[in-house]
Amino acid sequence: MRKLINRPEDFVDEMLQGIYAAHPDKVTYVNNDLRCYVRKHIKPGKVGLATGGGSGHLPLFLGYVGEGMLDGCSVGGVFQSPSAEQMLAVTKAIDGGSGVLYIYGNYTGDIMNFDLAAELAAVEGITVETVIGCDDVASAPKGREDKRRGVAGIFYLYKVAGAAAEAGADLAEVKRLALKARDNVRTMGVALSPCVIPEIGKPTFELADGEMEIGMGIHGEPGVQGKAKLATADEIVDQMLAAILADLPFTRGDEVSVLINGLGATPKEELYLLYRRVHQVLSAEGIAVSYPYLGEFATSMEMAGASISLLRLDDELKSLLAKPAHTPFFVQHQL
Amino acid sequence: MRKLINRPEDFVDEMLQGIYAAHPDKVTYVNNDLRCYVRKHIKPGKVGLATGGGSGHLPLFLGYVGEGMLDGCSVGGVFQSPSAEQMLAVTKAIDGGSGVLYIYGNYTGDIMNFDLAAELAAVEGITVETVIGCDDVASAPKGREDKRRGVAGIFYLYKVAGAAAEAGADLAEVKRLALKARDNVRTMGVALSPCVIPEIGKPTFELADGEMEIGMGIHGEPGVQGKAKLATADEIVDQMLAAILADLPFTRGDEVSVLINGLGATPKEELYLLYRRVHQVLSAEGIAVSYPYLGEFATSMEMAGASISLLRLDDELKSLLAKPAHTPFFVQHQL
Repeated sequence: MRKLINRPEDFVDEMLQGIYAAHPDKVTYVNNDLRCYVRKHIKPGKVGLATGGGSGHLPLFLGYVGEGMLDGCSVGGVFQSPSAEQMLAVTKAIDGGSGVLYIYGNYTGDIMNFDLAAELAAVEGITVETVIGCDDVASAPKGREDKRRGVAGIFYLYKVAGAAAEAGADLAEVKRLALKARDNVRTMGVALSPCVIPEIGKPTFELADGEMEIGMGIHGEPGVQGKAKLATADEIVDQMLAAILADLPFTRGDEVSVLINGLGATPKEELYLLYRRVHQVLSAEGIAVSYPYLGEFATSMEMAGASISLLRLDDELKSLLAKPAHTPFFVQHQL
Repeated sequence: MRKLINRPEDFVDEMLQGIYAAHPDKVTYVNNDLRCYVRKHIKPGKVGLATGGGSGHLPLFLGYVGEGMLDGCSVGGVFQSPSAEQMLAVTKAIDGGSGVLYIYGNYTGDIMNFDLAAELAAVEGITVETVIGCDDVASAPKGREDKRRGVAGIFYLYKVAGAAAEAGADLAEVKRLALKARDNVRTMGVALSPCVIPEIGKPTFELADGEMEIGMGIHGEPGVQGKAKLATADEIVDQMLAAILADLPFTRGDEVSVLINGLGATPKEELYLLYRRVHQVLSAEGIAVSYPYLGEFATSMEMAGASISLLRLDDELKSLLAKPAHTPFFVQHQL
């Protein structure tokens, strides 16, 4: 393992201690549990937004808790779902009296625990609604979007719903907007190397130098096409974009935001090199790009690779995307 | 090579094409040369701030060109100095009539070319002053600070000088503040894996799984202590901080900003784990941390490892650090 860690079993909690030490004015925890992560200042009357999921994906999931985005996050072990009890504690802490919306990725363990938390919250008089991110085109065919994994595109759901909630929208309206973002975002990823779960100590899968896997998930789930010889950046973008564009479909005259996400070990230089080709292809297709985002938004620790997400914009989504945000991991001025 | 690139010889220019395509409202190039990178809108009367250096370190160097920070950057090949001609073109483009300050890292090739550019600029009637970053404690002993390499701590010089220039300070004042930041920042790095220069195609040095090198530079320059068995995160922090604290020295009652910088392949989880220990040690030493920065600020492409920088604050540095900034790679609200 090439990791800067102490005991593998302390990895998640020590990371959380570091985050709380670095950002004491912005985030804290409840229920005497480091893994029940919430915004320091909860706005009364605002719809609460919560997420949750396994660790090892920073800034996903907790990194989006903050001004203009989310209010709380339950934090699981590396690649493990948090418990219903943790999610319930977060829900109670962030409820400002106007209900809570859960936004998280489409994984069986998370769904089970979050559904249970929602039921328990209802017993305590808190209305909970749910929107599940499922943007990974490679994980199930068109028509079976409900079977798709949630990956980097969930950033857009957080951003859009977060801006709406911050502006005072009610629960039904925030949910409508999160669903609109969900329905208009598509993602494809490519992996060039595996990552190592600290407590396991071995790579999650094998991928030799000079190989790639297009369509691989952020926990190393296999892609549709299996391993292949590493192609050029332009060839990879062309293949990934073809799948994305055909799926929604995105067509001439559309306006989109593009998210080029590094999976952990991929230099920013390479993300911009990918963007160069994305911009060329979209221009040729008559699709306009308005707000490009490049960086690490949903990672797999030290996995090398990247994903491309496209969000189809309308005036409403565009204006919510443009709003400022301020979390320990994501800062945006008004666009 | 596990890289998302096309032809290795096109790596730098295609990366730049991607950046210009993504941020056309913020940055552009002059002299018909992609590598002469400048802010889109130059403020008349403002002191111009320029940097430059080799590629492969994003967001260093060009990533700090933007509102509240720098005005221009000459961009070299991977780990190579840009030319004096490129630096001169940038200087002429960003001069707002109040002179230009060069801030760059302490490397022989850069010094030679930037000094020549400054002479050529003087002939054209532009006053140029220079401040050279030399924050890497591991690269030369105390008393020989002028021999030390510039690494991640140069971020603080950009931030402080940039905020002062943006607020209307004159050239002498901006230089004084950049020097003050330079004199009060110290950095130590640790590498866990090498990186690969695209046109070379092989690692810049060997570092086996389970080995580390404390004090290694961002081009793979050897550290003072050579290779060692990978220690725990806490042990590594303790060793690096001991060297940093003794050097300035930082002492009880000091207030510092801390920068935990990932070298490229190191997950944010690990950076926060390092910060946890830094915060513990500084608290025990009676040193207060005011503005922590965590993320990738000066990288070596896909190198695994991290660096720790401490800037000793006074009221003046603290207030400049707190000012907002807005570049394609670095966004900060007023702190």
